[in-house]
Amino acid sequence: MLSGVVIERLCIAGVGLIGGSLALALRAAGAVGEVVGTGRRSEPLERALALGVLDRYELEPARAAEGADVVLLGVPLGAMRPVLAALRPGLGEGTVITDVGSAKGCVVADAEAVFGALPARFVPAHPIAGTEKSGVEAAFPTLFRGRRVILTPDRHTDGEALATVRGLWSAAGAEVVEMGVTAHDRMLAGTSHLPHLLAFGLVDMLARSPDHDEIFQYAAGGFRDFTRIASSDPVMWRDVCLGNREALLAALAAYREDLERLTAMVAAADGDALEAVFRNAKRTRDRHLHIFEK
Amino acid sequence: MLSGVVIERLCIAGVGLIGGSLALALRAAGAVGEVVGTGRRSEPLERALALGVLDRYELEPARAAEGADVVLLGVPLGAMRPVLAALRPGLGEGTVITDVGSAKGCVVADAEAVFGALPARFVPAHPIAGTEKSGVEAAFPTLFRGRRVILTPDRHTDGEALATVRGLWSAAGAEVVEMGVTAHDRMLAGTSHLPHLLAFGLVDMLARSPDHDEIFQYAAGGFRDFTRIASSDPVMWRDVCLGNREALLAALAAYREDLERLTAMVAAADGDALEAVFRNAKRTRDRHLHIFEK
Ligand SMILES: NC(=O)c1ccc[n+]([C@@H]2O[C@H](COP(=O)([O-])OP(=O)(O)OC[C@H]3O[C@@H](n4cnc5c(N)ncnc54)[C@H](OP(=O)(O)O)[C@@H]3O)[C@@H](O)[C@H]2O)c1
Ligand SMILES: NC(=O)c1ccc[n+]([C@@H]2O[C@H](COP(=O)([O-])OP(=O)(O)OC[C@H]3O[C@@H](n4cnc5c(N)ncnc54)[C@H](OP(=O)(O)O)[C@@H]3O)[C@@H](O)[C@H]2O)c1
Repeated sequence: MLSGVVIERLCIAGVGLIGGSLALALRAAGAVGEVVGTGRRSEPLERALALGVLDRYELEPARAAEGADVVLLGVPLGAMRPVLAALRPGLGEGTVITDVGSAKGCVVADAEAVFGALPARFVPAHPIAGTEKSGVEAAFPTLFRGRRVILTPDRHTDGEALATVRGLWSAAGAEVVEMGVTAHDRMLAGTSHLPHLLAFGLVDMLARSPDHDEIFQYAAGGFRDFTRIASSDPVMWRDVCLGNREALLAALAAYREDLERLTAMVAAADGDALEAVFRNAKRTRDRHLHIFEK
Repeated sequence: MLSGVVIERLCIAGVGLIGGSLALALRAAGAVGEVVGTGRRSEPLERALALGVLDRYELEPARAAEGADVVLLGVPLGAMRPVLAALRPGLGEGTVITDVGSAKGCVVADAEAVFGALPARFVPAHPIAGTEKSGVEAAFPTLFRGRRVILTPDRHTDGEALATVRGLWSAAGAEVVEMGVTAHDRMLAGTSHLPHLLAFGLVDMLARSPDHDEIFQYAAGGFRDFTRIASSDPVMWRDVCLGNREALLAALAAYREDLERLTAMVAAADGDALEAVFRNAKRTRDRHLHIFEK
């Protein structure tokens, strides 16, 4: 889809924070005709109707997909495969399929399991935007504005399908980039999946400490920000850890080794070594601040 | 100092973010007469004068302390001992001494090294407030408003000195609590010192990765917040790690053990166990959110 071109009918399977925000963004941009939702229960879909996110919904995925130009998968990674299988009978010849999953290798594997191979009209995508909230009530139309969206097409990907998915995210205000599946999964393991595991782990550890009731009373802004991502959805993050297991294990191994080195520095009271690590971290983060804050 | 009573002359050794913010807060509250600064070089003290933080400064610590009702140590933990020794000749019989160090056991040890024992008029203190910025330019008068300040007096602490330090922080808008040195150092190791080490460590690790230039391009808001504390001052945090070494090593040991468990769960693709940890963390953090956000 080039700018100005409109998706006549968009089907969203999994109308939560991400799927709902995309629908709102596309509506605001006048880039979509009808938005049809589907999900496993009617209650949140009714709320999505009331919020103006959807025009209608169908509980039967294949019926929701019928006649859609684009079908977007907005479910947690663990639900991609069954939902894709349930959508399949409703997909037309030319239907473009895309997703928003936080890991890409597992989504490609799911598509392969359902279709035998990644369909040429399936464009895997991952918007680098979100909040620790979830559900359609948390959706808002500017979530993707100025954010990056990573597409991971392969050499069989259909050019028109790719252009449609690019256009869709551009219309939502995002900057679209392309990358290989492996590079995506390795980078995101480091900048997103590992930090989530570390933050969940720290809060869980403190919650199990003997003075757990008191300890949070003395936490400050640093702790609040460090642990914000530990308020994220447990199911979504369980699925990310499982879906990006290999890359996450590699990141975990490297981090645990570093933590062993840091522990040795503290044990040896090696102030120079600690200061050098802290200085490198601060310099690096300060240099990249403009990226996160744009 | 009870509310309404004014500190005639306050001496601040180390006029940075914390010392400077306290001076501004006390001035705004009309709770201080003259504020005299001291430090290791004149340049930042001149800036503190220009910013209205100080009335005057003396490069010689003992001269700055002369005639002060309260002497406040605002230097990094590693500088507490030499600065205290340098201030000593200027301290009067009734001078109240206090500090703002992020760990308390090492400050008590510094005072013991300089005076033989913790003076009855030395009230160790730690404001649970700060930012990742440092220097007097970053100081602002509302930094402590609604925040907690922990005092760690012992059974020899002079009642009047304690009341003065309580009054000083109350005037700055803080809520004052008392606690034992060991409890303070253990709790803060968990909620502040360990998270700082984890965040510094993560950014340092990513900075050393082969795709370090690219990797930060794909970091989102979760990463920005998780690593905000990795933009903190390397010297201050080196000193905290050394100053609270024992408690930090205990927290590190517990955390590394948990990370081993989490790694095993990911390796075994044990989704139920991961989800249980994430759920406990989310529940705990959400329950305590009102504390961090007040
Ligand atoms: N949140 C982020 O920061 C973020 C960022 C980038 C990408 N992502 C990715 O975006 C996707 C959705 O995340 P989100 O934050 O939008 O989550 P969300 O707000 O919880 O929405 C998830 C949606 O999927 C539905 N769903 C859940 N489990 C299902 C199942 N087993 N079968 C069918 N439908 C199911 C939910 O329906 P119910 O209402 O019935 O539960 C809901 O509509 C995930 O793949 C995630 O990895 C998230
Ligand atoms: N920042 C926080 O979040 C926070 C929170 C609670 C408690 N604290 C504690 O507050 C204290 C100060 O932290 P801050 O954030 O205010 O730091 P800061 O802004 O860097 O200020 C430190 C001050 O100490 C001076 N100083 C540094 N090294 C010195 C030395 N060797 N001899 C004499 N003076 C020296 C600095 O002078 P120059 O200008 O010459 O360097 C500066 O005036 C530390 O003990 C820290 O643990 C910090």
